[in-house]
Amino acid sequence: MIKKNWWLLLAAACLLTAFAPLQKKQRIVFFGDSITEAGVKPTGFITLLTNMLQQKGIGNNYELVGAGIGGNKVYDLYLRMDDDVLAKNPDIVVIWVGVNDVWHKRSFGTGTDADKFEKFYNAIIKKLQAKNIKVLLCTPAAIGERTDFSNELDGDLNKYSGIIRNIAANNHCQLIDLRKMTLDYNLANNTSNKESGILTTDRVHLNETGNKMVAEAMMKALFP
Amino acid sequence: MIKKNWWLLLAAACLLTAFAPLQKKQRIVFFGDSITEAGVKPTGFITLLTNMLQQKGIGNNYELVGAGIGGNKVYDLYLRMDDDVLAKNPDIVVIWVGVNDVWHKRSFGTGTDADKFEKFYNAIIKKLQAKNIKVLLCTPAAIGERTDFSNELDGDLNKYSGIIRNIAANNHCQLIDLRKMTLDYNLANNTSNKESGILTTDRVHLNETGNKMVAEAMMKALFP
Amino acid sequence: MIKKNWWLLLAAACLLTAFAPLQKKQRIVFFGDSITEAGVKPTGFITLLTNMLQQKGIGNNYELVGAGIGGNKVYDLYLRMDDDVLAKNPDIVVIWVGVNDVWHKRSFGTGTDADKFEKFYNAIIKKLQAKNIKVLLCTPAAIGERTDFSNELDGDLNKYSGIIRNIAANNHCQLIDLRKMTLDYNLANNTSNKESGILTTDRVHLNETGNKMVAEAMMKALFP
Amino acid sequence: MIKKNWWLLLAAACLLTAFAPLQKKQRIVFFGDSITEAGVKPTGFITLLTNMLQQKGIGNNYELVGAGIGGNKVYDLYLRMDDDVLAKNPDIVVIWVGVNDVWHKRSFGTGTDADKFEKFYNAIIKKLQAKNIKVLLCTPAAIGERTDFSNELDGDLNKYSGIIRNIAANNHCQLIDLRKMTLDYNLANNTSNKESGILTTDRVHLNETGNKMVAEAMMKALFP
Repeated sequence: MIKKNWWLLLAAACLLTAFAPLQKKQRIVFFGDSITEAGVKPTGFITLLTNMLQQKGIGNNYELVGAGIGGNKVYDLYLRMDDDVLAKNPDIVVIWVGVNDVWHKRSFGTGTDADKFEKFYNAIIKKLQAKNIKVLLCTPAAIGERTDFSNELDGDLNKYSGIIRNIAANNHCQLIDLRKMTLDYNLANNTSNKESGILTTDRVHLNETGNKMVAEAMMKALFP
Repeated sequence: MIKKNWWLLLAAACLLTAFAPLQKKQRIVFFGDSITEAGVKPTGFITLLTNMLQQKGIGNNYELVGAGIGGNKVYDLYLRMDDDVLAKNPDIVVIWVGVNDVWHKRSFGTGTDADKFEKFYNAIIKKLQAKNIKVLLCTPAAIGERTDFSNELDGDLNKYSGIIRNIAANNHCQLIDLRKMTLDYNLANNTSNKESGILTTDRVHLNETGNKMVAEAMMKALFP
Repeated sequence: MIKKNWWLLLAAACLLTAFAPLQKKQRIVFFGDSITEAGVKPTGFITLLTNMLQQKGIGNNYELVGAGIGGNKVYDLYLRMDDDVLAKNPDIVVIWVGVNDVWHKRSFGTGTDADKFEKFYNAIIKKLQAKNIKVLLCTPAAIGERTDFSNELDGDLNKYSGIIRNIAANNHCQLIDLRKMTLDYNLANNTSNKESGILTTDRVHLNETGNKMVAEAMMKALFP
Repeated sequence: MIKKNWWLLLAAACLLTAFAPLQKKQRIVFFGDSITEAGVKPTGFITLLTNMLQQKGIGNNYELVGAGIGGNKVYDLYLRMDDDVLAKNPDIVVIWVGVNDVWHKRSFGTGTDADKFEKFYNAIIKKLQAKNIKVLLCTPAAIGERTDFSNELDGDLNKYSGIIRNIAANNHCQLIDLRKMTLDYNLANNTSNKESGILTTDRVHLNETGNKMVAEAMMKALFP
């Protein structure tokens, strides 16, 4: 009897193992700059997303991985995508880049030309899609939250956001238009024309409200 | 008889002298950069203003003088205001500056800090008002005419326009808000989001339509 | 007898008063940026100069006045020269400016064009010389102390130093060539190619050795 | 007898064919920016090199290929190296890049940070050396030829040249120190401190003398 049971258990184990691949966790990599790097902190948007998935009872189906590095521009992502993204064998990649490409023009003289921004962005998508990885694109949220159109870099940030929107359309990628959401949110809520403190702590990096807004936007895009 | 005539002549002379000040031409100096420098060309806004005054039959009452020099920023105006404005003994000065203060940040690394822009602007007004000269201020019209908020320098141009609006209010100067007019005109007429060609030839300098718009705006402000 | 003495005292007092103008202190104003602003600190070069004059026993003949303001470029000096220099009625003015005109090109996009640097500098000298004030010019010492010619802004700093040397020659002003002294001192002493710490604390502002070098150079120039 | 000879000839032919791979042309790719792009013009340094090899009678042993594209910075080389270099299966690659990485900081605000310059440069070398390709590195020659150390970007150009020298040493790559050669040549020949016209036409791109100097330097490095 004992022996028989032992065989039954073994059979059951084999069956479980056999079906395990069907239940393999989907891996979602968040690929970006310091904003994404901070996303895995306790109150960061990636952590919030993980919690949301747990509450929905689907937390075990997904693995969310942060791959953000401070100061990264689009070509930095391209350089490290083999090691930091492809090596992780993701099912989905959420790209969020652009702030430094614009910002560093003024602060260090080392921003990214618009045409090269587009070229490197397309090269990243091409490599990901060649591996059948689903790619979602985000527009850069903000460099300054003033609502009277006087944030110094808004013009360029809008231009690069437009480039990303076109890239998304051309490559059939889902778009998470954080730029538009940020502008709309500020127009509605930043009535005293503050430079920061509405969605960001410092004009660029997300505060608690910002992390919530981004997490919800990504939730909607990833799990509609 | 001779004596009587003599008295009559004297009386006439006195009358003429008495009324002469009333007929003295008012001198209006337009003080600015290359846009103002081009204003005295055959189709420039200063020439158009002169023609408008002729048509109104008050052309002989006013002398319009261009004092624009290409590449000028606010501190360049301050440096040459004694020679180029005060020496001309104007009744009215129309100041139009700001494009290069913003533009040269990016193109040459030699723009003007916002706080110094304000400081020099106030110093110019103080010197003019000390001589009882009426001062009108213009906001900078445009660096790029795109209507999707993607002109690279719009944020900064709006910021400096805001500074000028405050300076006008604080110094009780009339404001000719060319920035607002340009934005409104483009939103209404630049439906294909062109970079130039609506009011400017090259994103900055006025085309025929632009010169007309500016001339009419100045006409309204100067001769309401 | 008392009366007689009284008269003698009065006569002596008159004599002293009469000769007082001959003994009037010479006022030397140091006109510049943050480096000059720090010159009046306990270890600053202006304080060191004052001490040197005391030791030489001629301290009572001179009054050294600091007129440095952080972040100042040449046009800032021009703007405030009436209030901060001419109002003090100086006999001698030592101008030391140029670092920010070069540096701010990169850091803020608000440096000073070379041709305008020259124009404003000449305007300052003209105003000072018109009041018979003796003017001494200094070249900007350093933005970085590396000796392998790899300080990012050295090329431009050398260019602006050259402009100042020409201005000095053209206006018959004495030159204190701090740029050359700094380069020579570093070539001799900065054998490990340090970025700062030889004559500066932070690539720009003087450390103790730097303040001494500058004080001695000025001593030699002002009291040869 | 005739038959025998025929067999001998055949044997000889077979032997020749067998050794043919030993005589395969060596392919040398010149990988760079607009300066390299112009190198294949009739008077360009790559053309001159080809002629030199012909004169030496070894022209048939080598194939020289230009792979320069105007405006390229180090990360542009990295992006296109698969298509433009590796696909050509080269034996030797001569990398010459750096001018735009420095220059574009000032002209467009889109230069390359020093640390990223190094990172991308190393990534290129790693990929080439992994394919057993011999790599030679050049330092950037000039942005301005003045000899009084007043070329605006010399400091940064020297810094990036220093980075390349270190990369060459660390990766056991041969170095063609065009920066040093250019400085030395100008110090000897540019006695009137001209901005261009000695080795360049426009401060950056090679004139006839410049192309000759570079061709000779490369000849010496490639075929010592």
